[in-house]
Amino acid sequence: MNIFWEILKPTNHKVFGEAIAILAGDALLTESFLMMTGTTSNGKKLKPTYLMNAIIEIASAAGACGMVGGQVQDILSESSEPDINTLYFIHLHKTAALIKASVRIGAILAGARRNKLKVLTRYGENIGLAFQIIDDILDIEGKTEELGKSAGSDIKKNKMTYPSLIGIEESRKKAQDLVYEGVDALRIFSFEADPLREIARYLLKRRT
Amino acid sequence: MNIFWEILKPTNHKVFGEAIAILAGDALLTESFLMMTGTTSNGKKLKPTYLMNAIIEIASAAGACGMVGGQVQDILSESSEPDINTLYFIHLHKTAALIKASVRIGAILAGARRNKLKVLTRYGENIGLAFQIIDDILDIEGKTEELGKSAGSDIKKNKMTYPSLIGIEESRKKAQDLVYEGVDALRIFSFEADPLREIARYLLKRRT
Repeated sequence: MNIFWEILKPTNHKVFGEAIAILAGDALLTESFLMMTGTTSNGKKLKPTYLMNAIIEIASAAGACGMVGGQVQDILSESSEPDINTLYFIHLHKTAALIKASVRIGAILAGARRNKLKVLTRYGENIGLAFQIIDDILDIEGKTEELGKSAGSDIKKNKMTYPSLIGIEESRKKAQDLVYEGVDALRIFSFEADPLREIARYLLKRRT
Repeated sequence: MNIFWEILKPTNHKVFGEAIAILAGDALLTESFLMMTGTTSNGKKLKPTYLMNAIIEIASAAGACGMVGGQVQDILSESSEPDINTLYFIHLHKTAALIKASVRIGAILAGARRNKLKVLTRYGENIGLAFQIIDDILDIEGKTEELGKSAGSDIKKNKMTYPSLIGIEESRKKAQDLVYEGVDALRIFSFEADPLREIARYLLKRRT
């Protein structure tokens, strides 16, 4: 008996029905903005202008010009010809936008200046894109037990991915370049950016 | 040819499919919070703390403890025994919460004190509840052309409403009491609350 199958649970809409599942999404989305208004640092309330900028960051990254936009394009592209520019758009919005936002928000709440935010934007986008490409490589190579979904499940669904468009080796190189470039951008930071460097390195090592 | 039928359009999910319709909802919800961060009054940026309080107000009214919570209870109650307390809960959350919030937010952005907000809470809740009750009465009495949905459509769906629970006459009285009580609460305001008084009076007059 594989431990992996024991922790698999049916999704919300299978258990509670589609209407409740959609409402759960609406509620979580709304509650997330409510939570952000009460965000504190070491128990101290943060500056309202910083919090407001963090809310702008998350809303922009999640909404029509971010994750939702990428998801819509992903659905619209399901039956169309594979195209590397469309795929880049999808990854940049569906995956990288929120990763970028999560990297930037720490800096925003600490009152970082524009030049530092610019560097973190570059790092976050690159890491986000690399994460997605590596995910698609692992989907082909990975074993079901390790990955949490059936290996090759994207191929079965005829999904547009980097490996399916430019091959596994080229994709791996692309992901590496993105990660190196992202880490290189961090050079204006000293050891305080080490956790970000470590995350980047982990991305290239991960097998699951 | 009835003009009403000409402006009837199929809903989003009929035209674009369920996935895109759900994403449209997610996007609009997210964009609404983004819009709020840029709210201005006469072109001037509003105080960040006031804006933050407005965001808290909307998120609370819309989320799990507000409109979404009411909608969930509405769905869960579809097949259960009619019950006036459950119905009150549903109306208070599904309908009145956002109406109350929209009344309060004007005052919040103007920096109103707690005693005024308390009055506006009372007014908003009462108006919201009355609106829903009147809507349910009109659903039974109204003509299809005027109302924008088939007359009696709630009855056909066996929906729990005030008229179905306590009858049309009692429901009409209940709505009137709520409106009078709401308007009465406004007595601490002078003419500046006249638009709110006018809205309340309109509620009792509306036939469509």
